[in-house]
Amino acid sequence: MFRQVAILGTGLMGGSLAAALRARLPGVRLVGFGREPDISRAMELGLFDARADSVADALAGADLVVLAAPISVNCALVPEVAAHLPPDAVLTDLSSVKGPVVTAWRRTIAAMSDGAATQATPGLGDFVPCHPIAGSDRGGPDAADLDLFVSREVVLSPLPGNRPDSVERLQALWQQLGAHVTRMSVADHDRVFALVSHAPHAVAFAVAGAVAADGANPGRPDAAGKDAGAGKAVRDDGEEAPIRAGDHAGPGLLDLTRIAGSSPELWADILLQNQMPTLRAIDAVDARMQAIRHALLTGNRQALTRLLQEGADWRRTWQRHG
Amino acid sequence: MFRQVAILGTGLMGGSLAAALRARLPGVRLVGFGREPDISRAMELGLFDARADSVADALAGADLVVLAAPISVNCALVPEVAAHLPPDAVLTDLSSVKGPVVTAWRRTIAAMSDGAATQATPGLGDFVPCHPIAGSDRGGPDAADLDLFVSREVVLSPLPGNRPDSVERLQALWQQLGAHVTRMSVADHDRVFALVSHAPHAVAFAVAGAVAADGANPGRPDAAGKDAGAGKAVRDDGEEAPIRAGDHAGPGLLDLTRIAGSSPELWADILLQNQMPTLRAIDAVDARMQAIRHALLTGNRQALTRLLQEGADWRRTWQRHG
Repeated sequence: MFRQVAILGTGLMGGSLAAALRARLPGVRLVGFGREPDISRAMELGLFDARADSVADALAGADLVVLAAPISVNCALVPEVAAHLPPDAVLTDLSSVKGPVVTAWRRTIAAMSDGAATQATPGLGDFVPCHPIAGSDRGGPDAADLDLFVSREVVLSPLPGNRPDSVERLQALWQQLGAHVTRMSVADHDRVFALVSHAPHAVAFAVAGAVAADGANPGRPDAAGKDAGAGKAVRDDGEEAPIRAGDHAGPGLLDLTRIAGSSPELWADILLQNQMPTLRAIDAVDARMQAIRHALLTGNRQALTRLLQEGADWRRTWQRHG
Repeated sequence: MFRQVAILGTGLMGGSLAAALRARLPGVRLVGFGREPDISRAMELGLFDARADSVADALAGADLVVLAAPISVNCALVPEVAAHLPPDAVLTDLSSVKGPVVTAWRRTIAAMSDGAATQATPGLGDFVPCHPIAGSDRGGPDAADLDLFVSREVVLSPLPGNRPDSVERLQALWQQLGAHVTRMSVADHDRVFALVSHAPHAVAFAVAGAVAADGANPGRPDAAGKDAGAGKAVRDDGEEAPIRAGDHAGPGLLDLTRIAGSSPELWADILLQNQMPTLRAIDAVDARMQAIRHALLTGNRQALTRLLQEGADWRRTWQRHG
């Protein structure tokens, strides 16, 4: 299948891919290239057979090259990777947004050949965009998990000029890691994942932020002084403390906001890289939120129940996933 | 502590309380009263020592009475419960909203005594409002869980006229079930839980609904025909199918929307019962969402990162809760 895999980016995603390859395809040689301290830690953890000190070094002899850094870094790496990519190698990436990486690749190819080359030009390697739908609110090689991709979806967005066997081999590799593979276009990918991942992250951060902001504003009796809340809570131990809403989170809110524990820098980058589809998805969520708000404001129980029901119907089809 | 507990409502909450009392306070006699088929199923599961066929029957001999039905049902039960409540008994409830139950109780007390009685009038029982911060997206007695309250917060909102020992005994009971108890006013409770529970449920239903709605609108190439998405995905098995965003949910979205699998009727009821605080909380979330949207629209990476950071900072203080 593949004999030597170069993984550029040795945090959660690159580290998990290395661990999964090691466990399930033991003959494959794994070369890591990444920033400090991740790369040193990844070597300590035994995730890679060798570390490379440059992109050229990492790519020498590789038949599969994986861009596994944050999306902006992946985009920035493309020109140097293209310059050193062995002609028969397959290049792929693990970015959450596909458009910008594909654009970086196309621009690089055009520049390398003075505009004459296409994706399919021999001798330029073959880039097959990829996005495994898996992650964690933790990051870095210590969070690497050899089972991260098991039973998860991996989306491939093949480009018009891809060699068929590049796509087939990559698909077979992911299947051997326990993932199931879906193919869809770059544009469809970025629209779908704006709605099911990028906008929901924005929502989770917004809810967590609104809850956190309440701490600065404890309740006070209203003008009439009529049971408007003393703004103090008494705990088990008898101690009285100002009320901060965020101290009273239950399991539902903690589940809802779990992804808000993810890296703000990483997610600001993802949202900005998928700007327009994410704005549209945020607006779709907001439109439903406003419909729910209106039904609540007008006391329309029937409309409110119907709006909630539509969400529940969808979620219950996934009930088995906890 | 208590010798005989009457639980009115034998679904998830009432059933879990019965199971927890049975496991941790084995001498207590448990009487259940509820609608079919829940009450028959609860008896089959051995959750109660006896079933009652009327409120009067349920309350005879009880020294603790628990309203454990959905909030509107609890409110509707109050007059009949007040009429049959043994004079020394403590009455409590498990409702997610405290204002309407307290109002129902005060109106009932006033009506029973032609306006002369107060909360503290002897012979009228003693109502201590209560809300355990625990639940499940599943309902009914089959979902009953004797550990539902372990390590969870239980909020007591004592009323000005409560007998001190009623509150103390109820607090001690919850502590024996493994919960930790916080006391706060009715108004503070309803404001805090609008923000940390009721509005987040509305958000989860809205996100799930927006994702579900995408199914009816598969992507199509744009006017220029330029890689705007074929609107079809090819699965592992080679089959081609129209893209529905909801089919591609990952673990983050499934966590975020877990509570949208809850009962729409129950949650429409809770939102309507806590209407004004929930509207205010929805607006607080929406304001942050719009701030995030604006930072994304204007490409302001610094502002966007800061907004996400505020949510992440709060969520990470809860990281140990998964």
